[in-house]
Amino acid sequence: MKGLKLAALQKNGERTTFNVGDITIGKDFLMIAGPCSVESEEQIMEAARLAKETGASMLRGGAYKPRTSPYAFQGLGRVGLKYLRDAGDKYGLPIITEVVDTRDVYLVAEYTDVLQIGARNMQNFTLLTEVGKIDKPVLLKRGMNATIEELLNCAEYILKGGNKKVMLCERGIRTYETYTRNTLDLSAVTALKGLTHLPVIVDPSHGTGRKEMIKPMSLSAIMAGCDGLAVEMHPNPCEALSDADQQITGVELEDLIISVNKTVEFRSSLYTGTQV
Amino acid sequence: MKGLKLAALQKNGERTTFNVGDITIGKDFLMIAGPCSVESEEQIMEAARLAKETGASMLRGGAYKPRTSPYAFQGLGRVGLKYLRDAGDKYGLPIITEVVDTRDVYLVAEYTDVLQIGARNMQNFTLLTEVGKIDKPVLLKRGMNATIEELLNCAEYILKGGNKKVMLCERGIRTYETYTRNTLDLSAVTALKGLTHLPVIVDPSHGTGRKEMIKPMSLSAIMAGCDGLAVEMHPNPCEALSDADQQITGVELEDLIISVNKTVEFRSSLYTGTQV
Amino acid sequence: MKGLKLAALQKNGERTTFNVGDITIGKDFLMIAGPCSVESEEQIMEAARLAKETGASMLRGGAYKPRTSPYAFQGLGRVGLKYLRDAGDKYGLPIITEVVDTRDVYLVAEYTDVLQIGARNMQNFTLLTEVGKIDKPVLLKRGMNATIEELLNCAEYILKGGNKKVMLCERGIRTYETYTRNTLDLSAVTALKGLTHLPVIVDPSHGTGRKEMIKPMSLSAIMAGCDGLAVEMHPNPCEALSDADQQITGVELEDLIISVNKTVEFRSSLYTGTQV
Amino acid sequence: MKGLKLAALQKNGERTTFNVGDITIGKDFLMIAGPCSVESEEQIMEAARLAKETGASMLRGGAYKPRTSPYAFQGLGRVGLKYLRDAGDKYGLPIITEVVDTRDVYLVAEYTDVLQIGARNMQNFTLLTEVGKIDKPVLLKRGMNATIEELLNCAEYILKGGNKKVMLCERGIRTYETYTRNTLDLSAVTALKGLTHLPVIVDPSHGTGRKEMIKPMSLSAIMAGCDGLAVEMHPNPCEALSDADQQITGVELEDLIISVNKTVEFRSSLYTGTQV
Repeated sequence: MKGLKLAALQKNGERTTFNVGDITIGKDFLMIAGPCSVESEEQIMEAARLAKETGASMLRGGAYKPRTSPYAFQGLGRVGLKYLRDAGDKYGLPIITEVVDTRDVYLVAEYTDVLQIGARNMQNFTLLTEVGKIDKPVLLKRGMNATIEELLNCAEYILKGGNKKVMLCERGIRTYETYTRNTLDLSAVTALKGLTHLPVIVDPSHGTGRKEMIKPMSLSAIMAGCDGLAVEMHPNPCEALSDADQQITGVELEDLIISVNKTVEFRSSLYTGTQV
Repeated sequence: MKGLKLAALQKNGERTTFNVGDITIGKDFLMIAGPCSVESEEQIMEAARLAKETGASMLRGGAYKPRTSPYAFQGLGRVGLKYLRDAGDKYGLPIITEVVDTRDVYLVAEYTDVLQIGARNMQNFTLLTEVGKIDKPVLLKRGMNATIEELLNCAEYILKGGNKKVMLCERGIRTYETYTRNTLDLSAVTALKGLTHLPVIVDPSHGTGRKEMIKPMSLSAIMAGCDGLAVEMHPNPCEALSDADQQITGVELEDLIISVNKTVEFRSSLYTGTQV
Repeated sequence: MKGLKLAALQKNGERTTFNVGDITIGKDFLMIAGPCSVESEEQIMEAARLAKETGASMLRGGAYKPRTSPYAFQGLGRVGLKYLRDAGDKYGLPIITEVVDTRDVYLVAEYTDVLQIGARNMQNFTLLTEVGKIDKPVLLKRGMNATIEELLNCAEYILKGGNKKVMLCERGIRTYETYTRNTLDLSAVTALKGLTHLPVIVDPSHGTGRKEMIKPMSLSAIMAGCDGLAVEMHPNPCEALSDADQQITGVELEDLIISVNKTVEFRSSLYTGTQV
Repeated sequence: MKGLKLAALQKNGERTTFNVGDITIGKDFLMIAGPCSVESEEQIMEAARLAKETGASMLRGGAYKPRTSPYAFQGLGRVGLKYLRDAGDKYGLPIITEVVDTRDVYLVAEYTDVLQIGARNMQNFTLLTEVGKIDKPVLLKRGMNATIEELLNCAEYILKGGNKKVMLCERGIRTYETYTRNTLDLSAVTALKGLTHLPVIVDPSHGTGRKEMIKPMSLSAIMAGCDGLAVEMHPNPCEALSDADQQITGVELEDLIISVNKTVEFRSSLYTGTQV
């Protein structure tokens, strides 16, 4: 792929790593967990407690929610950011949350450890340019109709601005299949690991839209070569204000993380130190 | 389709119309023409002259260009807006241009007669909310992976803000077919005319990516029920800084408009006053 | 497109025409109408009467039905062929019906005037080879995931066998959009007219799956350059054994054909003798 | 999913197993390897030797090749069947090959241990009906535009005929992404394991079209829950008459099978006896 001056994997095979809290992303396996939306102080506190206890390494939660309908819950905004920050601080977890507006980049960066660019904003080029100017890691989600090449070009926008702490996230693409919410494209993970030095994360929650598929798809994603997972977990999924069908409980997260850790270890033994 | 409080066609069948310059959009057939990008004062002046002489009713031109690569021509920005305004004024044509950043909405609105939300920003909900607050017409392009329902929900975001002057634009969706740049979904035009009271415009330039297909697809779109067309025309397509393959010349535009006018007239005779 | 020795449009621009009954396909506009399935002698007789009276030029009806479920109505088989033949004969209409098995080609050819290869069998290469050996026209439907290039290569299979009477049929492709049953790709019609000398037919019934969209899509298809239409019509759509949602009545067919004829005439006047 | 009387997983959770040679499919992990096409006696003999030595459990090779162009190599036909049979016999490997015509079902069944229905014939319902009548296992490949529900309905056609030895094969679906030949839908594997009792095989060769992706996608497929893999291997991929880009060498197959075996063992330890 031409035109990727900064995002392309170089001949020396060197890969990007960067620290967030105690974790070295791109080296340590990253396990992001938390609710789709920050709904209340209690909810995110409880989610943080569950995330910490089950062994997750980062807490997620949306304060600004891109929703199909203007009448759906749009997130708590700045208050949500504060609740999320407090929850992360209390349980010693770095936090990640989405930014959807160029005007909010500095505000969100003030609160969060990692900024997320959502799938619908992957080609919001002014937003990419804006997060390229700050010194906080960015998780860039693949648009639901984006090619691998377009995703890498979007990473290039951020890198070009000077921000080198970029990770990519496969979260399912839109196809004709409707049994799953999206079609999780795990071959994109393998492809990306061969094309770029940036860490690659997989989101099996949006990728499938079905909680019973999250565990097998997570383990599958590990063998495809991913550097981490982002999973939606809610203290009480049935009462979630958004994405109720795809959020797992704390108990399910615990079971997932045990299997994830074993699979990451198995992968290491298989490749004896070399990346997939 | 539920949840469309403002965008849905009502039982009385009333349709939205609004004036831009001398044209009543939704009643008069709208013919937008102009280059993909404003490249220089001379280029847009010449494009305006050609648009006027051939009978187009609105001048288009991009000042802020969303481009896949950060190294591609990104548009002239504010200077481009000024050139476009001057060209429109000189030839008595209302103008339309894209806004890509919430921070630029008031600036762009100051210069232009109609604001365009591009396909990649269709679900940039904060941008939709922002243009919902102003008193200028908006052309909302369908995202290349957006369902008809999602497009209508995005229009609902704008309408909810108080801006009732919204028109929709079908510009091709992304499918597996690669012969055409996108797959122009003309059935969406017919579907939209049955679902919403908002005017529907078709962009056969992005829809096909092939200049030789623009005329038949334009005439086809008219019979599908569209209220206007948006066509890329460049004084010298070979030297265009973007989308060279799909821009037609002034001579080709003249030929197109003659056929378009005849087809619109034919359609009126066929339905003797009733909409498709 | 390379590799199309026989299907490609030649420099002289000559187009394939062939006679079926009184019609010259590729020259006269072809209007195929009839039910999805032949259900009984009475039903197909009544359908033939309606087709004839409203001005259709060919009668369709399926005797062998490819159905998603093995428990759905599979067609009347040989008996259905006989009923269809009798109905065509009684009303002086040539008939078209689908063949789905290499073993049935000669049997079906004995009864019908035109053989149809359905979308699911477009790449059933042994079936294509078999119909390439006979001296009856073939209507080849585009597979719902087939590229234009693949469709033309399938026509090449038939032509290579010696059968030159081939027409192509656009019937909608499978995309992520679910509002319509398929996405009718009218740009494929225009593309095909520029790539091949074979006649191109459009099926707006399967293409949309919605009866209210058949008329606008039919007129739209004409302006895209098609040589004919294939429309599902049933004497009593509500009682149809298959595809009830997309079959129109005789009254609706009459209204459709009046508009189709006017539009074909308009198209001729627009191009004054030249093809789109 | 309704209408699946025979293919649906029952409440007792019982799964289909059947023997082919020494292997119990659905219980033992199935490793199919061999060239895309049988090209000569020497080539398939050498492929069989490599398959046997590296630990594959079944030999594949196409004698009847469905090819996009009628001018491409179409396979050796009956002679190819004989070469394949001889190669399987010499090295003690059961064989699998594709049948593409209803007229050839008995002939192919005479030579082969397992019949393959290719992706392009998934909805060739008369072919499905025909293989439903025989007493040989069938591997049914998912069509490149088929939904999971359609695939299961096609299996139902075979089961309804009385043939209970059916396995399904995910081989990639057609999407807008062009970096990979198809998009391997591993979530379909997990979905199928929850919907049906039939064994599920994955073909990472057609699924990706890129030999460097075969190993990670194979291991990924195992964690998604598959019961076997089908991999294209050629003694000399560069000289292959078809699909040269996606066939691996014997050396690569050996390395693959070592990792596959370890991963299958790891999966067993993770689930301690329970299926994914």
